[in-house]
This record gives sequence, C-alpha cells and structure tokens, in this order.
Amino acid sequence: MAKKNKTTKTRVGKPRRRPNNAQKKGMSPGTLLPGTPDMERGPVRITMIDYSETACSDEIDWDGSISTGPRPGYRWIIADGVHDPDVIRRIGSAANLHALVQEDIMNIGHPAKVEEWNDHVFLILKTIGWDSAGMEPRIGQISLLVGPDYVLTFHQNDREFLEPVKKRLLSGKGKIRTMGPGYLAYALVDSIVDHVFDVMDRINDGIESLEEAIFTRADDAIIQSIHTLKHHVLIIRKMMTPMRDILNHLLPGEVPPFPDTLRVYLQDVTDHVGSILETIDGFREMLSGLMDCAMTAISTRTNEVMKVLTIIATIFIPLTFITGVYGMNFQFMPELAWRWGYPVILFIMLATIGGMLLWFRRRKWLVRPMGKID
Amino acid sequence: MAKKNKTTKTRVGKPRRRPNNAQKKGMSPGTLLPGTPDMERGPVRITMIDYSETACSDEIDWDGSISTGPRPGYRWIIADGVHDPDVIRRIGSAANLHALVQEDIMNIGHPAKVEEWNDHVFLILKTIGWDSAGMEPRIGQISLLVGPDYVLTFHQNDREFLEPVKKRLLSGKGKIRTMGPGYLAYALVDSIVDHVFDVMDRINDGIESLEEAIFTRADDAIIQSIHTLKHHVLIIRKMMTPMRDILNHLLPGEVPPFPDTLRVYLQDVTDHVGSILETIDGFREMLSGLMDCAMTAISTRTNEVMKVLTIIATIFIPLTFITGVYGMNFQFMPELAWRWGYPVILFIMLATIGGMLLWFRRRKWLVRPMGKID
Amino acid sequence: MAKKNKTTKTRVGKPRRRPNNAQKKGMSPGTLLPGTPDMERGPVRITMIDYSETACSDEIDWDGSISTGPRPGYRWIIADGVHDPDVIRRIGSAANLHALVQEDIMNIGHPAKVEEWNDHVFLILKTIGWDSAGMEPRIGQISLLVGPDYVLTFHQNDREFLEPVKKRLLSGKGKIRTMGPGYLAYALVDSIVDHVFDVMDRINDGIESLEEAIFTRADDAIIQSIHTLKHHVLIIRKMMTPMRDILNHLLPGEVPPFPDTLRVYLQDVTDHVGSILETIDGFREMLSGLMDCAMTAISTRTNEVMKVLTIIATIFIPLTFITGVYGMNFQFMPELAWRWGYPVILFIMLATIGGMLLWFRRRKWLVRPMGKID
Amino acid sequence: MAKKNKTTKTRVGKPRRRPNNAQKKGMSPGTLLPGTPDMERGPVRITMIDYSETACSDEIDWDGSISTGPRPGYRWIIADGVHDPDVIRRIGSAANLHALVQEDIMNIGHPAKVEEWNDHVFLILKTIGWDSAGMEPRIGQISLLVGPDYVLTFHQNDREFLEPVKKRLLSGKGKIRTMGPGYLAYALVDSIVDHVFDVMDRINDGIESLEEAIFTRADDAIIQSIHTLKHHVLIIRKMMTPMRDILNHLLPGEVPPFPDTLRVYLQDVTDHVGSILETIDGFREMLSGLMDCAMTAISTRTNEVMKVLTIIATIFIPLTFITGVYGMNFQFMPELAWRWGYPVILFIMLATIGGMLLWFRRRKWLVRPMGKID
Amino acid sequence: MAKKNKTTKTRVGKPRRRPNNAQKKGMSPGTLLPGTPDMERGPVRITMIDYSETACSDEIDWDGSISTGPRPGYRWIIADGVHDPDVIRRIGSAANLHALVQEDIMNIGHPAKVEEWNDHVFLILKTIGWDSAGMEPRIGQISLLVGPDYVLTFHQNDREFLEPVKKRLLSGKGKIRTMGPGYLAYALVDSIVDHVFDVMDRINDGIESLEEAIFTRADDAIIQSIHTLKHHVLIIRKMMTPMRDILNHLLPGEVPPFPDTLRVYLQDVTDHVGSILETIDGFREMLSGLMDCAMTAISTRTNEVMKVLTIIATIFIPLTFITGVYGMNFQFMPELAWRWGYPVILFIMLATIGGMLLWFRRRKWLVRPMGKID
Repeated sequence: MAKKNKTTKTRVGKPRRRPNNAQKKGMSPGTLLPGTPDMERGPVRITMIDYSETACSDEIDWDGSISTGPRPGYRWIIADGVHDPDVIRRIGSAANLHALVQEDIMNIGHPAKVEEWNDHVFLILKTIGWDSAGMEPRIGQISLLVGPDYVLTFHQNDREFLEPVKKRLLSGKGKIRTMGPGYLAYALVDSIVDHVFDVMDRINDGIESLEEAIFTRADDAIIQSIHTLKHHVLIIRKMMTPMRDILNHLLPGEVPPFPDTLRVYLQDVTDHVGSILETIDGFREMLSGLMDCAMTAISTRTNEVMKVLTIIATIFIPLTFITGVYGMNFQFMPELAWRWGYPVILFIMLATIGGMLLWFRRRKWLVRPMGKID
Repeated sequence: MAKKNKTTKTRVGKPRRRPNNAQKKGMSPGTLLPGTPDMERGPVRITMIDYSETACSDEIDWDGSISTGPRPGYRWIIADGVHDPDVIRRIGSAANLHALVQEDIMNIGHPAKVEEWNDHVFLILKTIGWDSAGMEPRIGQISLLVGPDYVLTFHQNDREFLEPVKKRLLSGKGKIRTMGPGYLAYALVDSIVDHVFDVMDRINDGIESLEEAIFTRADDAIIQSIHTLKHHVLIIRKMMTPMRDILNHLLPGEVPPFPDTLRVYLQDVTDHVGSILETIDGFREMLSGLMDCAMTAISTRTNEVMKVLTIIATIFIPLTFITGVYGMNFQFMPELAWRWGYPVILFIMLATIGGMLLWFRRRKWLVRPMGKID
Repeated sequence: MAKKNKTTKTRVGKPRRRPNNAQKKGMSPGTLLPGTPDMERGPVRITMIDYSETACSDEIDWDGSISTGPRPGYRWIIADGVHDPDVIRRIGSAANLHALVQEDIMNIGHPAKVEEWNDHVFLILKTIGWDSAGMEPRIGQISLLVGPDYVLTFHQNDREFLEPVKKRLLSGKGKIRTMGPGYLAYALVDSIVDHVFDVMDRINDGIESLEEAIFTRADDAIIQSIHTLKHHVLIIRKMMTPMRDILNHLLPGEVPPFPDTLRVYLQDVTDHVGSILETIDGFREMLSGLMDCAMTAISTRTNEVMKVLTIIATIFIPLTFITGVYGMNFQFMPELAWRWGYPVILFIMLATIGGMLLWFRRRKWLVRPMGKID
Repeated sequence: MAKKNKTTKTRVGKPRRRPNNAQKKGMSPGTLLPGTPDMERGPVRITMIDYSETACSDEIDWDGSISTGPRPGYRWIIADGVHDPDVIRRIGSAANLHALVQEDIMNIGHPAKVEEWNDHVFLILKTIGWDSAGMEPRIGQISLLVGPDYVLTFHQNDREFLEPVKKRLLSGKGKIRTMGPGYLAYALVDSIVDHVFDVMDRINDGIESLEEAIFTRADDAIIQSIHTLKHHVLIIRKMMTPMRDILNHLLPGEVPPFPDTLRVYLQDVTDHVGSILETIDGFREMLSGLMDCAMTAISTRTNEVMKVLTIIATIFIPLTFITGVYGMNFQFMPELAWRWGYPVILFIMLATIGGMLLWFRRRKWLVRPMGKID
Repeated sequence: MAKKNKTTKTRVGKPRRRPNNAQKKGMSPGTLLPGTPDMERGPVRITMIDYSETACSDEIDWDGSISTGPRPGYRWIIADGVHDPDVIRRIGSAANLHALVQEDIMNIGHPAKVEEWNDHVFLILKTIGWDSAGMEPRIGQISLLVGPDYVLTFHQNDREFLEPVKKRLLSGKGKIRTMGPGYLAYALVDSIVDHVFDVMDRINDGIESLEEAIFTRADDAIIQSIHTLKHHVLIIRKMMTPMRDILNHLLPGEVPPFPDTLRVYLQDVTDHVGSILETIDGFREMLSGLMDCAMTAISTRTNEVMKVLTIIATIFIPLTFITGVYGMNFQFMPELAWRWGYPVILFIMLATIGGMLLWFRRRKWLVRPMGKID
C-alpha cells in the first residue's frame, strides 16, 4: 500500500480547477473553454430515456428536446462527458441554462452544491468509487438538472453510479417511474451513498488489520498505511459534508421537483449520510489513536533494544577490563605468579556476572528481554 | 485484554449494513431481503402481552392483531428476531407500516432515529451490552413502534433489555400499567441506559487500573489496553449521541404517544444520557492523557537505561584503554620495568573511577539509577 | 503526590450511581432504596431555622411542617444525610415532592440540574471541596427545594458549604433575611463557588511549581502530577458546566422564587462561574503544554546522555584498537622493536584524541555536555 | 525552502499596524500620517477608466471628479499607492469619505471588512500572491469604494490583481460593462480568489512531494518544510475567513451597489471561497499528520540504528572478553598449553556468533537491518 | 527568558480574587474590605477634568460632586487606586453606585464585564502592558462608570493607559471633547487595545526568533521559551475575549451613553479586537507547531548522534576482537609464526573498514554525519 501512494492520483484538498484556470484569468465568468487536457477527447454521446408510470423506453440518442413534449411522462437525458463545450452549450440552450451553470458543469473540480433556478434545480454531486486498479479512491462528479418533467445528468467517468438507477427504471419496480424527476434524483443520490459504504468498508478493514499489525511490527509501512487511510477518510468527509447540506436544503419539501411526498425517502438517505459522517469521525479518531500507538510501540521497542545492549555491555565491559588488567606486561605483578590466580579471577568474573543478573532481575529487565523482545 | 482485541467483533464506525448491501444495489429502497447470513435462521417467535391498569396477561403467542380490540388495555408485541422478511411483512401489514420502515427494522446496522408517522412513532434504539464471554461490548438494536394502544418491539438478540420491563409489567408496581405505550417505551429506554452505566463502570475500572499500572510498567499491553478502551468509549458515544437527539425530539410532549405527563420521566432519562455523554468526554480526555503519559514514561525509562549504559561504558572504556596500553608488546616501554608501575597504574585507575563517579553524582545521574531504575 | 493518587477516591467521569443501580434494575423509577452501603448509617438529623427581616431563630429540630405557618417569615430546613428513605419520604410528603424528586435527592451521584415544579424549584448542586486529608478534591451534592417561603436543603457530608450562609443569617447583615428563599439559595451557590476558587488556587499553585520543576527534572513523578492535575481540572469542569446552565435558567427572573430583584446577584455569581470555566480552559491548555514540555525535556536529556556516551566511545574505542594491534603476539612485527615505537604510538593516540575533540567542538557537542549535562 | 524561511517577510499573525502605531498613540483616530517608512515614496499616480455599455476609455489620469458627471456610464478610479496622505485626502474629500475610512485605506495592515456608508460601500480586501522571487506568499491589500456609478480602488503593490479586470473591461466581453460598479467589485474579488487557487496549488504540490520524501528521509529540512507550509496555510486561512464574511454580508442583495441580479455571481465566488476554506482545513490536517509521520519515521530510524549497534556489540563484546581471558599473563593457565586450545576457542567463538544470529533472527531483528536499514 | 519565568508574577488562569477571599467567606456580598495586602497603602488621590467643546480644565483634585452641575460640559473623575474602601464608598455614594459595583471595583481580579444600571453603564476592562522590567506581561484593570455627563475611572497601577486620552482631551483635537462620555470611554478602550498590539508585536518577534533558532539548537531553553510565549498568548486571549463581548453589547447603539453616532468608532475598535483574537489563534497554532518541531528536531539529533556512535562502534569493535584473538597467549597458534601474518591481518582489517564504510554509504548514513551532524 505504501508504494502505491507515491503515484496516487487522489488529491484531498485541491479543487481540480487548475486545468482551465490559467487560461481563464481575465476571462468573463461563464466563458466555456475546452475541457482539461487529460480527459479523453472523444465525441460526447448524449442519450435519453423516456419513462412514465406504464412504460419506459430504452436508452437512445437524444433528439434535442428537453421534455417528452405532448406525450405524458418524464425524460432522463444523460451526457457521458463534459469536456466538449459545444455539447454543453447545445443542451444548455435547449434547457435554458445560465452561463455560470454551464461553466460549473464543465468544471469537474467544482465543489458540490444545490442551486434553485426558475424552472429547475441544479445539483452538483461528488461521487467516490475506486480507480480501475481498485487501489485508490477516485472522486467523480455528477451534475444534475432536475426540472418539472426532466432530469439532465452530466458526468465524465461515472457511469457506474447511473447503472443501478437505469436498471430500476427499466425493471419498473418500486415507485421510481411514478414519482417524477425528484425521485430519480433521489435514486441517484442513494446510489452514490451506497458506493460510499463500500469505500468505508474497505477503510474499516484497513483499520482493523492495522490494529492487529501495529503491536507486532510498527514500521514505516504501517505508518504510511495509517497516513494513507487518513487521506481517504479526509476525502470522504470532504465529499459527504456538502452532501448533507444539499439534502438538508431539499428536505423541507419546498423546492418544486422535491415535493413533500419525497421527504421520507430523502430523510432516509440523509440518515445514511449522517451515519457516514459520524463513522468518519470515529475513523479519524481511531487513526489518530493508531498513530499514537505506533509511536509508543516504536519507543517501547527501542527501549527493549536498549535494554539488551545495556545488559550485554554492562556485564562484559567490566569483565573485559579485568582481563585487560592481567594482560598488562608489567614485570612486577605478583598475582600472575600465584598458583590459584587464574581460577580466582575466573571465579570473581563469574560472581560479577551473577551479581549483575540479580541486579537486572530486581529491575525486572530480564522479564521481557528473555521472553519476548521484539 | 490485549490478545482478545485481535479477534474483537466490535466495530466502532461501520454500520453493519454490508450483508444485504451488495445485494441491494439497484434495488428499490424498501425491498425486503432475507437477513444477514450470520444470524441464526430459526423461526421467529412473536409474542404479546396484554395489560391494563388492573390486569396483565402473561407473554403468549401473537394472535395477529395489533391492538386489544374492544377490550380496554394496551398490547405489547415482541418479535424475537428480524431476519425473516415474512414475519416483518406480516406484522408490517397488520400495523400498516411503510415499506421503508420495514426495511429499517430488518437492517440491524441502522443508525438510531425517531420518525413520526400518522398513527404511530417509529424508534430505532441502539443497545450496548457485553458479549457472551463478557469481554467486549456488543451493540444491539431494538426497533419500537409506539401506537395509541400498542407497542411493537423488534430485536435480534437483545432480550436482556426487555426482561426488566416485562418484570415490572407483571409485578404491576409503579405507573407502568396506567400510563400507556409511551411510558412502556420510556421504560425500555431507561433499561437500555441502565445497561450503559454498567459498561461505563467497567471502562472506569479499566482506566483506574491503567492509571496505577502505567508508571510501574508501560509496555505494549498497556498501550493496547488504552487503545481498546478508547474503542469502547467511541462505541458508547456513537450510540448515545443519537439517543439524546431522539429524547430531545420527544421531550416537548407534542408527539402523540408521548404526552406532556411523560415529560418528567423523559427528562429524567435525558439527564442520565447527558451525564453519560459528559462522562464519556471525560473518559476520552483521560485516555488521551494516559497515552501521553505512557509515551513519556517509556521515554523516561529509555533515558534511565541509557544512563546505566553510559555510566558503565564511560567508566570502563577508558580504563580498558589504559590496560591495553600496558598490554602492548613494545620492547622499549620503561614503565613496565618500574617496581611500582603496577600499583601506580592501579591507583590511577581507581582515581579515574572515583572522579567519574563524582562527576556523575554532580549531574545527579546516580540518584535514581542506583535507587530505582526501572 | 504520585503515591496518593493510587488510592484516590475521586472519580471524574463516573456517576456514583452504581451502589443502588444493581438493585434498581427492573424497579419502577421513583422507588426509594436505602442509600449506598458506604455511607454512615446513623440517624439523620433534620433541623430548621426560622427567620424574618427582624428575627432569626437558632437551628433547632424540625417540627414537621414546611413553612412557618401563620407567623410571617421564612423557614430553612436542613437534612444532614440522604441515606435514610424514611426521612426523605417524610419530608417529601410534607413538601409534596414527586417520587422522582425524592429518588434524585437520595442518588448522590446525580448530575446537577434545575427543575421547576408547581410551587417550588428543585435544584441539585454539585460541590467541590477537599477530602479530610486535604489531598484530593471531594465532590459532594446539595439538593435544594426552594418554595415560596421555605428552603429545604439535603446533603450528605457537605456542612461546610452551609455554615457560611447560616452565619450570615444569624448575624443578620446584608439582605439575606429580607430577600426570601431565592436569595438564600443564591447565598448557598455563592458559598459553593467560593470553595471552587480555593480548589482552583491549589491547582494553580500546582501548575506553577510544575513549571519550575519540569526543566530541572522531568521524571515519572512529574508526569504523574501533571496527570493528576488534569484529573482535578476535569472534575471542576464537569461540576461547573451544569452550574452555569442552572444559573442561566434562573437569570431571566421568570422562575417564581428567583424574582427579577435577584438578577444582579445571580449575574454576579454567574460571572464568577464563567470566569472559572475560562480559567479551567486555560489550565487544560497549560497542562497539555506541560506534558509536551516534559516529553521534549526527556528527549533532550536522552540526547545529552547519548552525546556523552558517544564522545567517550568514539574517542577510546579506536585507541583501544591501536593498543590491541600492538598487543598482538606475532613474531614479525617490526614496530615493536623500534626504539621510538612506544612514544610515537603514544603521540599518535594523543593526536587522535585532540582531533576528535576538535571535531566534537566544531559540532558544538562539547558546549553543554561539559558545562551542564543533566 | 528551509533557508529562505529565515528571512521571510511574510507574517501570519501580525497586523502590519506597527509603523504608524508608535506615532499614533494619543492621536485622534482618523488622523492621517505619512505611510510606513519602507514603502516607496514616489508620487502616487491616480488614474481613471470611464466605461459604459457601449464604450470604454483607456486608463488616463484622474480629472478630480468622482463620477462621469452628465455623461452616462461608470468611472473606475485607481490609486497606485496609499502612502501619501495628501492623495488620500484629495480623493477622500471628492468622494466624501469619513476620516476613519481614509485612515483605514492608508493602514495596509488593516483586517478585511465591509462597511456600508450613506452613498457607498467600503471594502478592504486582502490579497495573496507570490513575492517577486516567487518563494513566499505575499499579502497585499486592496481597498474599494463602490458607489452608485463609480468604484475607487486603492492599493500599494497589487496591480496584478487589477489587470485581469481591466483587460475584461477593455475587451468588453461579458457583462462587465453593463452591470455597474457592483459587478466590477465582484470581478476584482474573483481575480483575487483566482490567485488564491494558484497559491493553494503550490501548497498542494509541496504536500505531495513531502509525502513522498518523508519515508525515505525524515530530517530537519523536511520538518522545516512542513512548518513553512503550515505557516502558508495559516496565512491563507486568515485571509479567506473574513472574505467569506464579507461575501455573506453582500449576498442577500440588500446593499445598494450589489443588487439581487448580482447574487448568482457572488454566490459563485462564495462557493469558491467556501471550497478553499474546506481545502485549507484538509491541508492543516494533512500537515499535522505529516508531522506525526515524520516523528514516527525518525523514531523507527533510531530504532533501526540501535538494532545495528546492539547486534554488533552483542556479538563481539562477549567474544572480545574471551580473547581477553586468554590474553592474560597468568603463569598457570593450563588451557594455553593444550594442543587444541586455540582451535577449540575459535570454534566456541564461532558457535557463539551462530547462536546470537539465530536468537536475533527469532526476534526478527535481522529482517530489515540486513535488507534495508535507513 | 527561561530564568525570568520562574519568578513571573503573571498568572493566566487565576482570578486574583484570593486576597480578600479568605476574609470574605460568610460575609454578605457587597461588603467592602481593605484591599489586598500587596498593594501600596498610600492615600488615594482623586482628580477630575472638566471639559466641554470649547474648554478643558487641567487635572485637579476632585470636589466631591459627580457632574459639572449647572455649567455645561462633562466631568472625568479619576481614582488612582482602589485599595481604600473609604474612597470607593465616598465616590460610590456620590454616584449612587450599587454595593456590588463598589465591591467589583475593589476586586482587581474581577473578570471584564459591562453592566447597565439606571443612569450609568459600569465597565470593567482588563489591560495588558509590560511590567516595570519589561520582561513579563502585566494584567491590570480599569473600572469605568459612564454616566450621562460624567466618566468615573478607577485603576490601581494603570496610569499609562489614561495618559494618551488625557493628552488628547487637553489638545482638543478631534471629536473627543464634543462627543460626550461614551466617546471618552471608547478612547480608553482604544488606548488599551493599542497597548495589546505592542504586546503582540513582542510575541511575534519571539515566535520569529524561535523559528530561526529551533533547527540550529533545540534545547530546554527553547522549549521553555515556547512554553512562556504560549503562556502570554493565553493571557491575551483571556483578556480580549470578554472585551469583544463588551463591545458587541455596546455596538447596537441602545445603551444610553453610547449612542448610534459612536457606532463607527466602536466598530473600528471591535475590528481591531477581532483581528487580535484571530492573530492569537494563529499564534497558538504556530507555537504548537513549534513544540512539535522541537521534539522532532531533538529526535533527529539523537538519531544522528546514534549513527556516529554506531558507525564508530561497528567499525572498531570487530577489529578490536581480531587484535584480541592474536593477543591470546596460546602456545600453538601457527599464524603467529608466519612471516606475513602481521601484514595479512593488517590488510584484512583495512578491508573490513572499507567494507563497512561502503555499507554505511549505501545506507546513506555517511551523507550527513560527515557533512553536518549537529
């Protein structure tokens, strides 16, 4: 995990505004520029699904009008890319979007928000999933325009969040076909939040495996893992906090496409968001605690290593000194000529070792170093 | 304590939504799925207790109707398991429950909440007890539906929280039989909160024993205990925070089954919850402080070990050098032939030792290393 | 200070509810149980003081009625113990107290609160003093019932907080006799807050002496003292926070026995409480800072010890190696036979020492180790 | 980066009020003093741009009147310096500015604010850019007076923030010429916020490169870089917090030159400011986490170094002792005369080494020290 | 700086209530006691300045009446000491002050506050300056009574804060003579806040010099300086927080002597206070960061010292062992008799040194220890 982090593409705090930022200085706000260079530049496909209580068309190419017209029912228009200003402008003029809204749709680093306009509500939702390698959380963005009988959806690479909703539309189960554009938007939010639970599960697993590992080996890889998990937690929090604000804005049932009948559904997803945010706070506290544990565990380990060194050195350095004394070449050293000099010295050295060991045992240094040091 | 933690089943932050989460993506909210695989799959027993001011039936099998019908009195229906969708659906249709409510009842990882519906109030309460081994806090969930003359209770494994209330009902003491379903719900909340005090007592005992242990031996086991206690504290806080919100919602006396006459009782339990939350904050601060103490104590210990090593090495390394000098085999070393060479050298070495000891004493290194090192 | 802590009876976070908690599970709230086992079980004396603007009786045994009856004036009834349910029940029926209020009075671990009832106000106040040995803060509890012309006071061991008020009543100075039960209650609160200042002074002295000590010797005793002071600070904060809420509830002058004319006095004591809480926050920050200082000071000390060891070892280990070389017994070692071999080697060794010392001085290692190491 | 910091001119917390502060004590507020000594003292050029929906004059010298007079259109007056009291006084009397406003304009360390006066709004905006060397963030200040048909702009060294707006005015694209002084002020704020994104990008790059570096080498330079980045983050936060307050004050559309038609633009820039502030909080948390990582990484490294030392010392110190024993010169040491004494001792020493290595391996000390130590 | 701290007279958290506290227990609130024993006990001089739009008297002894009487104009009465109860009582009865107000005036440790009375406003302001040695911040207190045509000022040792205002009064510049007592009070607050900027400048200088010093030498003196600066920052915050509350209370222009015409001036000084409080928060974060830096820097240093020791020991301990082997006195050691034994051993030892150095270089241990260790 540590290695991967070095080339991570996830950025917590930085709004990915940079690409067109340099070009934009001095331009009028609302000026549309071609998207960021690192986006794929293929043509953007625009599709639509018409649905009503009784029927639901398959996803087909957009015919250029926003609503189903005289036929009853609702229309869901999906733009699979936001990097082409022409496409945005085309939809924008058909749906009568303000220039700033069009600019926001193309800015895939825009913070989440909700804006009420005359005949529609504009939502920017941030999504979180896993990158294709499944190693790093990937932040995406889905912009929604919820009108009286249509929903416009703009996204760059976030089809996975739309598919569950499309499947439900086609299957026709539940109330999705009958409750209008507000419910469709709610279903999208629910799909996004469901994905967050997946990311949270992974983080939870990461924390649990760290908790087991931290006391057996606390090394740089573990510290880096803690840091990486903190990073991910910050990403989710940054993404979910405005989600809560958006839902709280919609909850009172006074924004037209989100009538009071939707409240129980919105409340349900709001509860989930609230629960995620609380859990996230728990994660942050756990990870801070783990960092403390890591540092304390390393200090304990250093202390144990020091004890081993100190025991060895304290026992043998004095003994070596004694051997040094009797290794001196003075001509007049009476002990050297004694018959029992050598055994006596050996005995003294053994006694010294014993005394040292007793002293260490009294200090309880020997309990762990001998049993389990590292 | 440290060992057990490795196989802990408690999870702070993770809503146990996972089991049916994977299956649920793309499904309509409100779809009921069979419960989580790790639940026991036996048939769910549904029982009921009819009570009135003057009488109280024993717990018997449910007869399928929600209220006592023409007979005066209140009915308490208890479902001992939420893993069987059929059972939930049966009770749900009898009590006229919204599909989302039924889904929430089956989701045993749902956050706590209160919801007002037309003729009943829906409460999800989180419980906290000890697992069967008594080693780890176990989070449970009790869902309540409080109607005008009935209370529905759903739980998976939390009988222990219902028993005290049942006993009071049967004994008929106090006001439990006369004050209706709201009071019964209050009695359940009170029972849950009473259990929290038990968990808190254990945590408090843990903190107190850590406070004693931390300065005698600060090792990995102690650090892990601190971490585990922090874990438990986070669990309680996560569980009690929404409890307070729920009670504050019920307190004004405007939710029908909780009339103004209940306010004094609800206020009482709210005070207890508030006191728990404050105490929890105190625990967190204490535990953070203990982690700091642990780290500082380990550093002190390392410092003491270092001093021992430094004293020994600083005294004997120079002496060993001197013996080395006179152990050299140069042919022209006049000292070696001196009559008093050996005693003079011995004296010089003794003087060196004395000087070193004086120097260490002046630096106060000898005060503790000699008295009490570890 | 460290030793004492081990047998401390102060508990920050734990509501002392435990004693009758185990018994109470399954009992109706409001059931009165004999008090905690560790209370003295002597008979409870109930006394009363009748006072009016012109006169004040001495403290005499209670005659069983709550107010002075036809005679004008106010009555202050004091129960010196809350462990006897009969006593509480007797006063309770005389004063028409709710069962929950009677239960709260007996629960000496109840959080502080204010409750308005029909004809009286019920206050639970937490007190803080020193235990008999003067070593640990002791938390107590005084329950007050303030009626239109009487004040009931219940306490277990907190006479010291009542005495100053009684003395003022008897002396008759100031407005205490003329302003009714609300003022008497205010005087009690003022007495409690005055005691808090004493506790704060001691904590302040403790912090100041720690600040001096921490840089001369940072050992376990100091760390433990910091921890103990944090403990005490948490106790005071836990006690004063609800006090502020209670006063803020009484301040607007709408609670009957606390009319608008008392506001200036209540405001005064509220200011003191606010000032204490701010000071407490300052204490907490200071103590956290001191813990950081302690850890940093210990690290500095370890660093200095390491430097001494490194200097000694770095100088003598290479020299000892040189002596080792010429202590080898090879038959063909030409240096050994040189006339100036010994002096040359001695000179080389001296030069090595000098070079090392210069190198250390350039690294500034010698500045402090030689001047002031520990 | 570390070196530069030592001569940094950026100051987070200190309002640059000092220069004329010493002189000002005892003076009436509103007294204008010559600017700070370290400002360039050249004459201040005052220029103006007249623009209307159809035309826009080039920047020319100011003619002394505040509005375009009878001709329709708006006037933008720019003072390139605030150090000359005469200039401020001249514009002040022409625009009817309060003495305190004039004083605030000259005080380039004033906190940001918005003030409504009778016929104009007074804004102090703080800017952030890079110093000429591009190494340190530089805080500047632009004061705005937005009247019904004019905008006065005062700045000391912040032309770069005005140029983009001037370019848009001259190009005439967008709504800048038609929407009056409020829009011009909004364009200035937008230009300032755009520059903040640049600074944030650099900080983000700094954090990312630190994340890579911290686990390969955690030294003083890295710690200093973390500290410097924290510094910069504090600067931005200090600057953007009042910006948000100012925008929230203008948003409701009740301040005259900022009518309701501007709200969508102001909301847009407010969103950006909000996003910056959230990102800043993320940065702070990341940097605190990095400091923890750095400390833990250094401790790990120390631990590894200690292990190397301990392994070497633990292996060789006992062996050296053995050689010492047989280097003693006792006359009666029977082993010395044995035929196989030397090989046996060599074998014993080899066995000791082997045993030690096995022991270390069992403690897993050899895994990393041999593979990758530092 | 470290030394001075030990005898500091500044106390952050402790309200200086202690002196008359012990005496006061059991006394009626509002009882005036002689001031604290450590105040100078000289007679208190009371002076007054009468001023109107056209004239301003010099400071002369007070004539005993509160207002200028029939003559138009305002009166400023200054009491240079609050330790004499008689003086306070005399002024108190002349100005009709409540007993609690008189008590508060004499209590020089009272928290700051504002109180509206019938015909006057009572303000307690805390001041901060430097002690006579200029080493420690000194907290003072000025009590103000602002009536319709008079200002009473009580202070113990804080003449320096009054002088600038008096000078402005005498010089007659600005609006000080025309705008009544509210403006005079404002001018005093402005003077107090101006002094705070001085203290902040010193703290800022301290932080900047610490930032430079911390990476060159991180020792106890630096840690102590950080701690002392934190101390000072806490003092200022504790003093300025209520100042902001007081100003916010006066701002709406509804307190009589502070009419709406003063609002622009009060807003100005409120802005300064707000800016100080924000800067203070920045200071606190900087100082916490510096403490972290210090600890990390010390750890780095310890790590470097350890590396030096390890390099030296790791190179020479094995070599010394080799010399030990050939220093043994076994009779059968064939190497000793070899012609090239000595040179071969020397070469082996050189090769060992070279190998070790290569190994260290590969681990990059040699980069810094050789270039710059400490």
